[in-house]
Amino acid sequence: MGKDPREAAREIIDAAIDAVRPEECIRRVFRLEGEVLCVGDARFDLRGVKRIYVVGFGKASAGMARAVEEILGARVAKGVVITAEGYRIPTERIRVHEAGHPLPDRRGLAASCELLSLVAEAEREDLVIVLISGGGSALLPAPAEGITLEDLVVTNELLLRSGAVIQEINAVRKHLSRAKGGQLARLAQPARVVALILSDVVGDPLDSIASGPTVPDPTTFADAVEVLRRYGIWGQVPPSVRRHLERGAAGEIPETPKPGDPCFARVLNLIVGSGRHAAEAALKKGEELGFRGFILTTTLEGEAREVGRVVAAVARELRRCERPISPPALLVLAGETTVTVKGRGKGGRNQELALSAALGIEGLRDVVVASVGTDGRDGPTDAAGGIVDGGTTGRIRAAGHDPRASLSDNDSYRALAAAGDLLVTGPTGTNVADLVLVLAA
Amino acid sequence: MGKDPREAAREIIDAAIDAVRPEECIRRVFRLEGEVLCVGDARFDLRGVKRIYVVGFGKASAGMARAVEEILGARVAKGVVITAEGYRIPTERIRVHEAGHPLPDRRGLAASCELLSLVAEAEREDLVIVLISGGGSALLPAPAEGITLEDLVVTNELLLRSGAVIQEINAVRKHLSRAKGGQLARLAQPARVVALILSDVVGDPLDSIASGPTVPDPTTFADAVEVLRRYGIWGQVPPSVRRHLERGAAGEIPETPKPGDPCFARVLNLIVGSGRHAAEAALKKGEELGFRGFILTTTLEGEAREVGRVVAAVARELRRCERPISPPALLVLAGETTVTVKGRGKGGRNQELALSAALGIEGLRDVVVASVGTDGRDGPTDAAGGIVDGGTTGRIRAAGHDPRASLSDNDSYRALAAAGDLLVTGPTGTNVADLVLVLAA
Repeated sequence: MGKDPREAAREIIDAAIDAVRPEECIRRVFRLEGEVLCVGDARFDLRGVKRIYVVGFGKASAGMARAVEEILGARVAKGVVITAEGYRIPTERIRVHEAGHPLPDRRGLAASCELLSLVAEAEREDLVIVLISGGGSALLPAPAEGITLEDLVVTNELLLRSGAVIQEINAVRKHLSRAKGGQLARLAQPARVVALILSDVVGDPLDSIASGPTVPDPTTFADAVEVLRRYGIWGQVPPSVRRHLERGAAGEIPETPKPGDPCFARVLNLIVGSGRHAAEAALKKGEELGFRGFILTTTLEGEAREVGRVVAAVARELRRCERPISPPALLVLAGETTVTVKGRGKGGRNQELALSAALGIEGLRDVVVASVGTDGRDGPTDAAGGIVDGGTTGRIRAAGHDPRASLSDNDSYRALAAAGDLLVTGPTGTNVADLVLVLAA
Repeated sequence: MGKDPREAAREIIDAAIDAVRPEECIRRVFRLEGEVLCVGDARFDLRGVKRIYVVGFGKASAGMARAVEEILGARVAKGVVITAEGYRIPTERIRVHEAGHPLPDRRGLAASCELLSLVAEAEREDLVIVLISGGGSALLPAPAEGITLEDLVVTNELLLRSGAVIQEINAVRKHLSRAKGGQLARLAQPARVVALILSDVVGDPLDSIASGPTVPDPTTFADAVEVLRRYGIWGQVPPSVRRHLERGAAGEIPETPKPGDPCFARVLNLIVGSGRHAAEAALKKGEELGFRGFILTTTLEGEAREVGRVVAAVARELRRCERPISPPALLVLAGETTVTVKGRGKGGRNQELALSAALGIEGLRDVVVASVGTDGRDGPTDAAGGIVDGGTTGRIRAAGHDPRASLSDNDSYRALAAAGDLLVTGPTGTNVADLVLVLAA
């Protein structure tokens, strides 16, 4: 018998979130040794650096900026970061702007101008530190010449409803922007660029996180046109967007920088935090608490309720057959599931996964499934996710709800609340993947 | 580098299916030592047994009967088994009937009468061996007095379309039958009963397999009425069915035997083959071929395409991060997924799972996902399932199909056929769970 698995799950989740807080992620890979700046395995002698600029965008960028400030102190010449409403934290040398998210707004537009001007100023002996995190795409709206913010918003809306996958959406976004798709790196030339990236995208594809402003872009203007045509929205996007993409496809506007472009010669991109880090921290904490286990995947995806059934199937095997490891055991999954909303209830993908898993582990003793968003906000609720056990469905019924009906109605929040099985962390200030734990004591 | 993973997957699947063939399952747990019959851990001295009767129903019952005959020889006094059209195999002492499946028919009705008469004949010194396998519910139609075969069929159809879950459907079935829900065991009294069960139901719930004819029934006539009312079909089922259930609920007809009923005192129920056996045989064969691995679950469930995405996420982790074990590695899952048909294509749950997984492992080297139905028939196709790798989607596109569109249209058969990635075994004569393998070389 290990520690109580519910209590253990909470401690493990806390430890995992702590491991991916923006400050912690920066400190893990970014430090000064005398006048040498160590960034991961790379070393930069600051005696050869004239000015250090810090720019950033994303929901975690203020926290990242503060950690960089603490490490570099007065060496930071100037800085501008853009974060979402309510995500500002005090900094000393770096200006923090709040702007609209997920819908970009005028504040974002103004702050982006300021940020891009600063980057353009940088010279050969300068170092530009770029802090990128989830939400960065909306928080750095920099429409290409002739395109308005409204044009961008309309095009984005059409794309999101078209059925296009994220790679396709990004191909368009990158070709309507002055910053995305590697263009920020080109703008920073000839300065040295170090981009520190907190990844909220499953699998950490560099060119997708915040639309890859410091990363080569394999897509083209022609691809962007093709995406709009394929999903039947070419005729619906604003004329300015069509004109820009057509001119680009005709070679009248420079392409985004492609893999091998010399503008990337002095660019270092480094993932400083991701679902992988959260999963590894979860496993480590679990082992400290006496659970043996492993990470099953760090790229989990699928419809939340169906993923919950698979997770429950794994939990049953762990409990009943003590396979693949004997309890006290811990399995960790990280990733991001999706919810196809069909009902009218309240919930989020983690709560829905947890409720579905609760139905699959009904009646089992000493087994717990927890699913949590590392940002602390699961869907439009004040919960981060759910933590369920073999008694969850019984408690839901005792409170007068039918757990299966709640799941059908996408009403996981109320069902889990009735069972006392919501996980509430409050906003965490970070955002990597979701975390799913299976524990058997 | 291990053996070629595609080739290994095929060998592993063959070994797993061999391990759950009816004859093999019987031989594994059923043998004679002199005059002592060993059934699992139980021992029966045949010198105290007057006559041995063998009865059976289900798609594997003829194979099971033949194995029992081979072991007991002339000790078998009489026998009747009922199997599906085309599943007959030659036997010497036991009569094999073919009957309608999945729709019960008059042949089944006649054969069931013969079978039940034989069981009713058995006396205290007799041994009744009952061979139960998937399909047994339809192949042993024994309507209660006053109910016709047509009444049963209509009621069953209404239930299947009502949204009721299998436990609810079985509560009704058991209370309209003379054999299901433990009643066959009661009929066999006072003889000794040994039921050998080849399980096609995930999790091997004894009271669900063929509606549990030798197993206590926790459900009641009142439950059966409640199910029909809850799903709004009480008014639609035939009057004879309503009358029978109402009389039962009023205590005018004996209930099915409940847990603790003395009629089970001399009954042994034993699972002789299931998804678990297939999974264990798969793992063993994999280890012989140099793959290290484990069984992840034996109760897999969920929408096939979503399960495929989760399986692919696990495959990616295995390949890219060499977690949770380093290649050559094998993970085994057993269970049964479902397909919600929305398109107009051709396929089955295993092919759909495989096609979905193919999209998730696109471009990865030396990794294979295979999904196969142990009965050799996946959906209305001549394939047993699919076997995919990182090149599958490319091969599908090269043949002029769009793998994502094929998946959306439930058209996995044509897509996998185009890639050369169908798994074809032919009918195997057995039927336990489906098997999903993930291999990384």
